[in-house]
Order: sequence, then C-alpha cells, then structure tokens
Amino acid sequence: MAKEIERKFLVNGDDWRPGAQGIAYHQGYLAANTGITVRARVAGEQAWLTIKGPSSAGSRDEYEYPIPVADAQEMLERLCIGERIEKIRYRVPYAGHLWEIDEFSGENAPLVVAEVELDRIDEEVALPPWVGLEVTYDRRYTNGALARQPFSRWGRP
Amino acid sequence: MAKEIERKFLVNGDDWRPGAQGIAYHQGYLAANTGITVRARVAGEQAWLTIKGPSSAGSRDEYEYPIPVADAQEMLERLCIGERIEKIRYRVPYAGHLWEIDEFSGENAPLVVAEVELDRIDEEVALPPWVGLEVTYDRRYTNGALARQPFSRWGRP
Repeated sequence: MAKEIERKFLVNGDDWRPGAQGIAYHQGYLAANTGITVRARVAGEQAWLTIKGPSSAGSRDEYEYPIPVADAQEMLERLCIGERIEKIRYRVPYAGHLWEIDEFSGENAPLVVAEVELDRIDEEVALPPWVGLEVTYDRRYTNGALARQPFSRWGRP
Repeated sequence: MAKEIERKFLVNGDDWRPGAQGIAYHQGYLAANTGITVRARVAGEQAWLTIKGPSSAGSRDEYEYPIPVADAQEMLERLCIGERIEKIRYRVPYAGHLWEIDEFSGENAPLVVAEVELDRIDEEVALPPWVGLEVTYDRRYTNGALARQPFSRWGRP
C-alpha cells in the first residue's frame, strides 16, 4: 500500500501553461460513496484500477494496479456511477516539487486545480504564484465527488 | 472482460465430501451496494481483486486481477464493508461439470452452497444428488449480500 498525501489548490490564470505538456485522462468511479473509492482510469496508452481508503488529514491509503486499457474502457462505459471525469493532466515542476495540474472538460469545465504530492502533510512547500485558494479539505473537489456532482452544476438545486 | 454465468444451489448432506479437498478463502467487499461489487480475496497463497457488474439472468460482467497477498490482507482489515466472508471452497467434478462447493464459517455458518459455472444459463447440466433448492436468483445468497447480512442473522430483525 502507498499513502497518498497531497495538498490541492485552485489555479489562477494561465502563467503555468508555457511549456506544459498534458496527457488526456478519462476516469470513472465504480464506487465512491462509503469513503472508499474505486477508480478506473485511462491515461494516454495506459490504464489503472485504483482503490483509495477514507481521507484523513490530507492522507489516504492507496492501491494502484495496471489493467488492460480495454478493460478500463469497458468499465468506464458499463460500470461507472455518476459522470465520467475528463481532464488534461499537466506536470509542472516548481521549486523542488512536482505539481499536477488538472484542467477539466465536459461537465467539470472550466475547473482547473493543482495538486502537490508530499511526504508529510506538514512538509514545507513553496507555492507557485499561479495557485490560489487551498481546497485540500473541501471534499467537493475530490474527483469522486466531481463525478457525482460536477462543477458546472454547483449552486443549482 | 469475462462473463460469469452460473447456477447456485443449497447443498444437502455430506455425500459430496469424500475425497474433496478444500482451500481456505478469506474475502471482503470494498463496495457492494450499487449492483457493482468490488471484492478482495485471499485464496491459499494467492490474492485477487475482482470487479463484478450487475447481475442479469444469472450472468455478470467480471474482471479479475491478481494482487499481492499483503495488499489484499490490508484491504480486508482496513477497507471492507460488512463482515468478512470466511469459507472453504471445494471443487467437485460431477457428470462433466465442475462444481464449486462453499462451506461457510463464522457468521455465515452453517451455510453450504454449490455453484456450477456454465457457458450459457440454459446449458443442460446434470444435478448431483446432494444439491437441493436452487437459489440462483435469490440475491441474499450472493457473497456480497452475505457480507452485509450474514446467514446466521437471517430472520432476526
């Protein structure tokens, strides 16, 4: 088991874009309602099945296994709950940390969030000028939550 | 993706036991409440993660991946919902078909069920003398349901 420890921020503006190359991610959730999420993801030419435990203080148990792309695509078409998550993921190094910027499309456009993976939740990290509000503990921004309640529908009854 | 097509019966008596060798199965469910089940299973020295789609006419989509035994054991301890399923599985050939007999222990004792896997749900199959009531369509007997509502508690409020 790995531990996923990360902080998450909203992204302001486009200053992170120059030189950033993205990979298309298509993912969906086979389960996302008991604190445990089960995710099928196609990222470029590869696919994974990922289990995440409940979140606690920015940290989650995480198990990830490569699976055939055809299996993942079938799961996305046949078995997923809520909406499919479609996004471009960019990896942008900044001051010794690697930032992952997710630019959502479809029902979650125009949301753009940045995550930084840490060894400890209280690890010191220099924030790039293009990050804004921290949303680490706002559960609406988890991808599992965005599948159930996409960003474009927030604020509607 | 494989298709799981099977019929399931209650087992009467012990005439199936002579010569049958069993393997201990420990399994639990990371999800089992939207028609999709996600199962971690340790069987002897091996472990699997299995995704099953909703059941329709005795048939379910099924994806199964080998995972490290240590991962599966952690999932059983940390991430599973309901009770853990503990059973001995025996494989007993009969008249050209392989029957899997599950003898449950713990909260699901003294339940014993037999399953036969088929190529088609209407495939002709000779029933062994030790099978009784067919429960193929009784969802209480799925292992996912037995994890939530174990056999020993049936009939109690």
